[in-house]
Amino acid sequence: MSSEVKQKTDQAQASVVAMSKASTDIKHEALENLASCLDKNRSEVLAANTEDVERGKSNGLSAALIDRLTLTDQRLDDIIDAIYHLVDLPDPIGTVKSENKRPNGLTIQEKTVPLGVIGMIYEARPNVTVDAASLAIKTGNTILLRGSSSTLSSNRVLTEIIQTGLEKAGLPAHAVQLIEDTERTALKEMFTMHGDIDVLIPRGGAALINQVVNESSVPVIETGAGNCHVYIDESADRDMAVQITVNAKTQRPSVCNACETVVVHERWAAHHLPRLIESLEEHGVTIVGDEQSRSYSEAILPASEEDFAAEFLDLKLAVKVAADLPDAVEHIRRYSTKHSEAIISQNNENVKTFFASIDAATLYHNASTRFTDGFEFGFGAEIGISTQKLHARGPMGLPALTTIQYHVFGDGQTK
Amino acid sequence: MSSEVKQKTDQAQASVVAMSKASTDIKHEALENLASCLDKNRSEVLAANTEDVERGKSNGLSAALIDRLTLTDQRLDDIIDAIYHLVDLPDPIGTVKSENKRPNGLTIQEKTVPLGVIGMIYEARPNVTVDAASLAIKTGNTILLRGSSSTLSSNRVLTEIIQTGLEKAGLPAHAVQLIEDTERTALKEMFTMHGDIDVLIPRGGAALINQVVNESSVPVIETGAGNCHVYIDESADRDMAVQITVNAKTQRPSVCNACETVVVHERWAAHHLPRLIESLEEHGVTIVGDEQSRSYSEAILPASEEDFAAEFLDLKLAVKVAADLPDAVEHIRRYSTKHSEAIISQNNENVKTFFASIDAATLYHNASTRFTDGFEFGFGAEIGISTQKLHARGPMGLPALTTIQYHVFGDGQTK
Repeated sequence: MSSEVKQKTDQAQASVVAMSKASTDIKHEALENLASCLDKNRSEVLAANTEDVERGKSNGLSAALIDRLTLTDQRLDDIIDAIYHLVDLPDPIGTVKSENKRPNGLTIQEKTVPLGVIGMIYEARPNVTVDAASLAIKTGNTILLRGSSSTLSSNRVLTEIIQTGLEKAGLPAHAVQLIEDTERTALKEMFTMHGDIDVLIPRGGAALINQVVNESSVPVIETGAGNCHVYIDESADRDMAVQITVNAKTQRPSVCNACETVVVHERWAAHHLPRLIESLEEHGVTIVGDEQSRSYSEAILPASEEDFAAEFLDLKLAVKVAADLPDAVEHIRRYSTKHSEAIISQNNENVKTFFASIDAATLYHNASTRFTDGFEFGFGAEIGISTQKLHARGPMGLPALTTIQYHVFGDGQTK
Repeated sequence: MSSEVKQKTDQAQASVVAMSKASTDIKHEALENLASCLDKNRSEVLAANTEDVERGKSNGLSAALIDRLTLTDQRLDDIIDAIYHLVDLPDPIGTVKSENKRPNGLTIQEKTVPLGVIGMIYEARPNVTVDAASLAIKTGNTILLRGSSSTLSSNRVLTEIIQTGLEKAGLPAHAVQLIEDTERTALKEMFTMHGDIDVLIPRGGAALINQVVNESSVPVIETGAGNCHVYIDESADRDMAVQITVNAKTQRPSVCNACETVVVHERWAAHHLPRLIESLEEHGVTIVGDEQSRSYSEAILPASEEDFAAEFLDLKLAVKVAADLPDAVEHIRRYSTKHSEAIISQNNENVKTFFASIDAATLYHNASTRFTDGFEFGFGAEIGISTQKLHARGPMGLPALTTIQYHVFGDGQTK
């Protein structure tokens, strides 16, 4: 057993009551302390980050990873702005969601309370350190941050700043702690802390998320992959279908709500597919497709079975031609990662069938899958996008970090 | 791989859309068919159950297990009544929980939908077969029932009756299926069906629940053990404290919401503990306690550390004397299984502190822990009592078998 995980989990547990009792004002004070302390200590943060970046470069990290790892003054501005924005949101803790007076005189209140101890497991992104800690503070939770070894110097300085912010507000510093042991044994130890860590939230690639889901006995909030589809119905408006598909594929191809496969009704395809392909090519998209799609456009390369299952996260799109709506539904049900799926159609019956048949967190009619996002949904914050069905589904706002507790008031009832 | 688990999971998945689309009336028709078919086929059910009971007896099952396993005409009446009662409850599916018009014109609806495929894992209780299947039908889910080998004959007949009820209503028979392979390998195969089975619900002893929690990659709704405490504050009314403690311990000692340890403020103990012990003894309770408690009553036997952690589920109670409220809170936080905890007190400040400090699904002021129950809470049904914090906590009614889906309606939005 890594004594660090055990010790810090105990310290997190010892901070749970103080955090759950903390008033909204005190939590906001801690967040504002954190923001101003970050602002004052920019040079220290950037210096530690430079250490990480240089170590990463000499270890041969990819340019994409180095980019995720790098903090700049601009990025610090964004991080600080996000903290102030969080302060402006309503406190989700202490709300009475229902109150029920029973015939025997008992009053049963259902109240929102913090989850307790959150374990956040993430990769080389120091912004997640501040983001996750701020969300935990806002919701009265304690949090164990388990970042990657490549971010260790940045994470140490950031955690110190967060802890200073907590202490200045009179809250326990141990409410936010960094697990500095970046060995796999420490991670595996977190998986066994059922009852001591209340939830694990993995943020990162599919391999990390699958490992946590498969190995952890602690409940997991799964923020999963997005193999999102746009289905273009026979009745779809040509220009709308083209605009939505191009947006869903190209606006930001590296994110989970980007479109990976377009499924096209054969009658729409016969008339309009070449035009769609042309627009996508103008945006630099490489297109692979099934045999039928290739009969409509020479620009389409042959697709493999894997292409339909892939989350490209790149300017690459798969095309599948469907004989009818049931054929399209079958394809999407087979390959969907249950994240976001869209139908472009002028036929309301088909929309109804599509919505009733597809099992995804978010379904769209005549809109881009790119809207699956806590801010776009008006939540004001985002923990991540859940592709699981328990506890939270789709974009998660602050309530995803809460649970409920029943408070029952009597005057001696035994029956 | 046991082909049965794979095959029946595929069949359950193939029934998901039909079940999720089924109208309230059709689901109720299936439930009423089930009730009347059970009534008509009593002799067949009881004959199959007799086979199980006789095999159980020759295998040396305990009297308690034989009792759980046994169906009678009276028990069938109760099972049938429960089905009709379920029909009277509102359908939790298809409710629009929130609707949000965004500045860009998108309408975002949050709608309740079924979970999909539920895996119910339980022990020698044939009533759970009908109970779980009825709850699944009512909530538009499909279900895989994995009972124990000792109930196989009963479960086969019951599942046939349930499937007949579904088919007569035009719903897929495969919405409810029995996993007949009672080997551990079949169970372990269910644990790996992440993405195909949406949730596992274990119902039974701590060993079963722990195995599912520790080994399953499929999300679990944990219905856990109850080491419930009654804390008697210095200010507690004597008679109320005695009545509640006696009720919480003795009314039905074998259930998870029964009290296992009473924590007594030392000043209350000095005056009233002998009276409490006397009442408990009159109800046949064996009492063990810490050293201080034994100084107040000779009837108290010495308690071991294990006694304070135990869920006796029997007419046995542990007593701990606390120096003050923080001492009591510390003891309860240490041993609580986060199920139900009560404070008996006339001091509202102490109640507030207790409620803010104890991390359990249900907290009681001046009432018995025995009320933690879906029917007592007015839910009209009970899936079980969740001791976890994600998705559902405390007594679970029909909404615990639902999730949400976002339905987004646009007219071409890409930004």
